[in-house]
Amino acid sequence: MFSKILYPTDFSDTAGKSLQYVKALRNTGARKVVLLNVINQRILDSLETIHKVVYFQDGRYVEDREAAIQKLEEERRKKMMPIAAELEAAGFEVIVRIEKGHPVTEILKVEKDEAVSVIVMGSHGRSNIVESLIGTVSEKVVRRSATPVLLVKR
Amino acid sequence: MFSKILYPTDFSDTAGKSLQYVKALRNTGARKVVLLNVINQRILDSLETIHKVVYFQDGRYVEDREAAIQKLEEERRKKMMPIAAELEAAGFEVIVRIEKGHPVTEILKVEKDEAVSVIVMGSHGRSNIVESLIGTVSEKVVRRSATPVLLVKR
Repeated sequence: MFSKILYPTDFSDTAGKSLQYVKALRNTGARKVVLLNVINQRILDSLETIHKVVYFQDGRYVEDREAAIQKLEEERRKKMMPIAAELEAAGFEVIVRIEKGHPVTEILKVEKDEAVSVIVMGSHGRSNIVESLIGTVSEKVVRRSATPVLLVKR
Repeated sequence: MFSKILYPTDFSDTAGKSLQYVKALRNTGARKVVLLNVINQRILDSLETIHKVVYFQDGRYVEDREAAIQKLEEERRKKMMPIAAELEAAGFEVIVRIEKGHPVTEILKVEKDEAVSVIVMGSHGRSNIVESLIGTVSEKVVRRSATPVLLVKR
């Protein structure tokens, strides 16, 4: 019933709180956790201004968009490692996924793709300018998901 | 974490499906279930037309609103008994509550009143004319509850 859990995180406090609920589901027979972070399309769109990777070549500065994305992915992966370790210590098999795009779309894609049995996520996440209000994200996920969603409040 | 579960039911298929999730939470240390049914204010308002209790007195027909409400409550209680029995058989201590009013308000009142740790409910419930679309109910509950909500899809 809860055998494979999709746990999308944006590293917010509510996502951190949700992690405790994921772990509590271990005793229901939950075995696998898909730990997901979505690099929001808005961040990718603003890469040239906030995550610029520039190098000097042939007498001028060149922007390396691919390198910037890769750097961003590495940062995310590093942030996910302690979470994955915590889940593994709790007895879960962990699948780490970093996707790029619109959070709702990517969460629903992974839901299908991984054939998860439940989604555990915060009802509200980060609310800075570049990252979307996950409040809206969670509402849209609930409306469109096929599997049950456990929404953890702030 | 899931020790006391609030399980509101409108006896819909989705509410029935939710019951299986309530039972699955037993292994997380869940001990108590508050089994709640709300008699929608709209039904109370329409009692004179659809749940009429009329008797003949002093040469004329008299409507007995109180008797009609009582009859309705008894019907609901009867419907809840097999659900309570199923939960008890699964090892839960069950508190049966029938409340009258607006579903969202009553669910949130009971959430506070019973100091539950999680709410398990269907994302969509009955959708006939007299009973509200619980889709809207569940969305409002999620927005306003303090505890996590597990929303079970159709």
